[in-house]
Amino acid sequence: MKNINIRELALELNLSVSTVSKALNDSYEISEETKRRVLETAARLNYVPNPYASSLRGRKSKNIGVVIPEVADSFFSLAINGIESVAKEKGYHVLICLTHESFENERTILKEFQGGRVDGVLLSVSRETTQCNHISDLIANGLPLVFFDRACDNVETAKITTDDFESAYKATAHLIQQNCDQIAFLSISKSLSISNKRLEGYLQALSDYQIKVDQKYIIHCSNDAEQNYLLIKKLLQQKNKPNGIIASVEKLTTPVYMACEALKLKVPKDVKIVCFSNLETAAILNPSLTTITQPAFEMGKTAATLLFRALENRNFSLIKEDFIIPSTLVVRGSTSH
Amino acid sequence: MKNINIRELALELNLSVSTVSKALNDSYEISEETKRRVLETAARLNYVPNPYASSLRGRKSKNIGVVIPEVADSFFSLAINGIESVAKEKGYHVLICLTHESFENERTILKEFQGGRVDGVLLSVSRETTQCNHISDLIANGLPLVFFDRACDNVETAKITTDDFESAYKATAHLIQQNCDQIAFLSISKSLSISNKRLEGYLQALSDYQIKVDQKYIIHCSNDAEQNYLLIKKLLQQKNKPNGIIASVEKLTTPVYMACEALKLKVPKDVKIVCFSNLETAAILNPSLTTITQPAFEMGKTAATLLFRALENRNFSLIKEDFIIPSTLVVRGSTSH
Repeated sequence: MKNINIRELALELNLSVSTVSKALNDSYEISEETKRRVLETAARLNYVPNPYASSLRGRKSKNIGVVIPEVADSFFSLAINGIESVAKEKGYHVLICLTHESFENERTILKEFQGGRVDGVLLSVSRETTQCNHISDLIANGLPLVFFDRACDNVETAKITTDDFESAYKATAHLIQQNCDQIAFLSISKSLSISNKRLEGYLQALSDYQIKVDQKYIIHCSNDAEQNYLLIKKLLQQKNKPNGIIASVEKLTTPVYMACEALKLKVPKDVKIVCFSNLETAAILNPSLTTITQPAFEMGKTAATLLFRALENRNFSLIKEDFIIPSTLVVRGSTSH
Repeated sequence: MKNINIRELALELNLSVSTVSKALNDSYEISEETKRRVLETAARLNYVPNPYASSLRGRKSKNIGVVIPEVADSFFSLAINGIESVAKEKGYHVLICLTHESFENERTILKEFQGGRVDGVLLSVSRETTQCNHISDLIANGLPLVFFDRACDNVETAKITTDDFESAYKATAHLIQQNCDQIAFLSISKSLSISNKRLEGYLQALSDYQIKVDQKYIIHCSNDAEQNYLLIKKLLQQKNKPNGIIASVEKLTTPVYMACEALKLKVPKDVKIVCFSNLETAAILNPSLTTITQPAFEMGKTAATLLFRALENRNFSLIKEDFIIPSTLVVRGSTSH
C-alpha cells in the first residue's frame, strides 16, 4: 500500500492542508469531530507523518537558525553573541550552520530548515551566492528570514547592514590624507553586495580627490589564505607598488602583514594599511592596525530583534525593515606617521 | 478526548514501542498488516505524533550537534572546520550550539538534543560544568557523544584531547631556559579538566627545576575581558612581579599584552609570554607571540570520525576510544632575547 502525503490526504478529506495539519497537531482551533475524521482517514489511506514536515510546523521548534559563511572571523563571532543575547531572553536556541562560502551548502542548509527544524532564519549569504531563489522559496514557505551584513538586494525582507560605501570612502580618504596616492583595494568577491559597495566607496573617494583609478590596484582575493598571500606579495613587488592598502575583509590582515614583512616593507612608512576588521588583537599587532570596526554585536542583536518581532506577530511585515548601522574608523599605528 | 503517547499506544496494541515507532515510520521491517493495525488504533485512541519524539528517531535527522563554549576562539573555529570536513563527506549537517561557558545553557541544549534533532553530539564542556548527569543521560538515551578538548573524566565515552600536562610543562621549561624564575600561570577555571592538567604541568616543571611555587603567581581569571585585564595588571604591578607568564587560554592574549603596554613593560625583556593559542595573528603581534599551538582541526576531525563510526555501526563502542593528539610549542618573539 503506497503512502500518501498530507496534500493527498487533505484532498480526500475535502479540507485545506492547513486544517489537516492543525488536526494532526491537535490544535484547539479544530473540532474534535474533524480531528477524528482526519486521523481515521489518515490511517485508512496509510498517511505516514513526516516528523519534520513543514506542514506540521504549528508545533514550534523554539530554534532560530543562523546561516553564515564561517566563524573564524571576529565579525561573525561577535554578531552571534548579539543574536544569542536576544534569543536567550526569548527562550530560544540558536542553531549555527556554516556555508564555508559555498552556494551549494547554503542552498542545502536552507532546504533542510524548511522541514520545521527552526522557526526563523538569520542569514549572511556566501560569497558565491548570486541568485536567490532558495531564499525566496524559504520565505514563501512561511519561514521569516532577516539578512544581516551580506544581503540579496532583490529578496524582499529585512536587511541589517552597515554603511559599507561610506566606510570604504572614509578609509580611502584617510589614506589620501596620510599622503597615499597609490592605493590598492583588496576585495573577496565580484558578486557580494558588501564587496561591491566597499569598492564603490573606494572609487568615489579616489574620484573626489582626483586620483586616477588604476585597475592593477584592485585585487580580487579568494577563499584560500596561501593564494591570497601570494597575490598580495605580487602586488607589492611590482613597479609603482601601492603605498596604501585597504583590505575589505578581516582575514586578509595576516597575509597583508606577512607579505610586507617578507618584502621588508615598513608599515606605515613604506605602505599604510586599513582593514575592515573586528579583530580583538588589532591594537597589539606590529604595528597596531587601523580598522573599519563594524557594529557586529549590534547588527546581530537588531537582526534577531526583528526576527522575533515577526515570530511573535504574524501581522508584522519584515519587508520595509532595513537598518544601516554605521561602522567606525579607528586610527592606529598602521596609518599614522 | 485526551491524547495518548506512544507508550500507551504500544500497550494497547500489545506491541513494543520500537515496533510501533517503526510502523509509524513505515519501516520495511514491519508487515503491512501490522502497520494498518497500528495506524487504525492510533486514530481511534487519538494518538498525536510528536514530530521530535525520540521514539521516532528511526528516521535519521542527518544532523550532528556540536556544543562548545564559544566561537570567538580560534581553537573552536578551527575544530569546527575539522568536524565539518568529516560531516560533509558523510552528507550530514552540523548544528553548532554555544553554551557561553554556562552549565545551565549546556544542560538545556543537551536536553533539546534528546528530541531527535541530532543523531550524535560532539561536546566540549563549559567552564562551569562540574557534574555530568546531563551528559550521561543523553548517552543512556541512545545518543552517541564524543568529547573533544574539554571532557568529563567520569563519563565513559570517547575523549579527544591534547597533551595539556606535557604542553604546559614544555611552556614552563622553555620560560625557565629563557632565564625566567618568577613565572605566573593564568587559569580560567578551577574545575575544568584541561585547566587543571595545564596547571599540574606548570607545577611539575617548577618542581623539576627546583623553583618554589608561589601561590600569588597563580591567577584564576574569569569570563570577563575587562576584569581579566585588571587582574593581570595588578599581578604585574606587585613587588617581585613575574618575569614570565603562561596564559592557558587564547583569549587572555590581548589583556596580557595590553597590561604590559599600559605598565610600559617591554616584552620579552621585562616579561616573557607564552599563550595556549591558535591565533592566526600570533606571528604579526608586537612582539610576535610564542604559542602552544593545539591540533584543533585534527581534534575536531578525529572526534567527528569516531562519532560517525558509532553512528554507522551500532556495535562499535566509544568507551575505550581515547585519543591524545600532541600540541606544539612555537617559539617566537615574546620569549626570545
